[in-house]
Amino acid sequence: SRELFVLTYGALVAQLCKDYEKDEDVNICLDRMGYGIGIRLIDDFLARSAVKKCRSYSETADMIAQVAFKMYLGVTASVSCSNAAGNEFSLILDKNPLVDFVEELPAERASLCYCNLLCGVIRGALEMVHLAAEVTFLQDRLKGDAVTEIGITFSRKAEDRKHKRN
Amino acid sequence: SRELFVLTYGALVAQLCKDYEKDEDVNICLDRMGYGIGIRLIDDFLARSAVKKCRSYSETADMIAQVAFKMYLGVTASVSCSNAAGNEFSLILDKNPLVDFVEELPAERASLCYCNLLCGVIRGALEMVHLAAEVTFLQDRLKGDAVTEIGITFSRKAEDRKHKRN
Repeated sequence: SRELFVLTYGALVAQLCKDYEKDEDVNICLDRMGYGIGIRLIDDFLARSAVKKCRSYSETADMIAQVAFKMYLGVTASVSCSNAAGNEFSLILDKNPLVDFVEELPAERASLCYCNLLCGVIRGALEMVHLAAEVTFLQDRLKGDAVTEIGITFSRKAEDRKHKRN
Repeated sequence: SRELFVLTYGALVAQLCKDYEKDEDVNICLDRMGYGIGIRLIDDFLARSAVKKCRSYSETADMIAQVAFKMYLGVTASVSCSNAAGNEFSLILDKNPLVDFVEELPAERASLCYCNLLCGVIRGALEMVHLAAEVTFLQDRLKGDAVTEIGITFSRKAEDRKHKRN
């Protein structure tokens, strides 16, 4: 059913582009909608994936990239940690099914984060397992980048987290 | 990935309810969006289902109910022909996954056809195989009906069609 989803998502973005003149407002709206979806989707994810509790940010990022992305988008992402503190991660998608039917962004929509819903979904889902995070697109093939890259920055540093637990 | 689709669809309907005060306008908008999706989705359907050309309206209705619904919504519908002329059909869904997360329509949205996108999708897809049809919800569990029923009325009577072919 992915094609129906992808086309419906396209209709949603098109509607928001009608509603809001500024790309930034569309991006915010998509992120908010995604958040609302993420806080509900997490139950479905936990039930269907039957995963155990992640013990590190790194495990959590892998879980999103390998299990959740596969489950909901049919693709996996590769993960790398981007800082020494161990709380910043990059999820790199070679293929992004959400843009299957999008050739390119129109010139007047150059700042649109077409898939920004995904960031909100991840942020909402993480919050429900008590992990505050910022989630944003760092690269986007729709904008001419070589890959699509989602950045996840967990709000607390990995070190702090460990100390607290101890 | 159905849950993500169903929740995203909910976000779309919610946005349209913000945009349009009248339920009727939301319904029209969903139908139009669906139409735009249907005319693109048909290629995917024909490619993936590898079905042969349907030789009657009855076969076409079965194809939608059994193959297309299964492919895109994960459920099948039962089909009955509702008139002697053989151009009106009912698709009955016992279970409608699109409303999985909807408890009931808010009182002020009593005329909303929540799933009206589906009607547009069917209409658009049929048009691309040269079958003009009207597609509407006849019953809706969200409105208290016992089942969800989609009515498809092909514009030409089955008889006329046969005569023309001969």
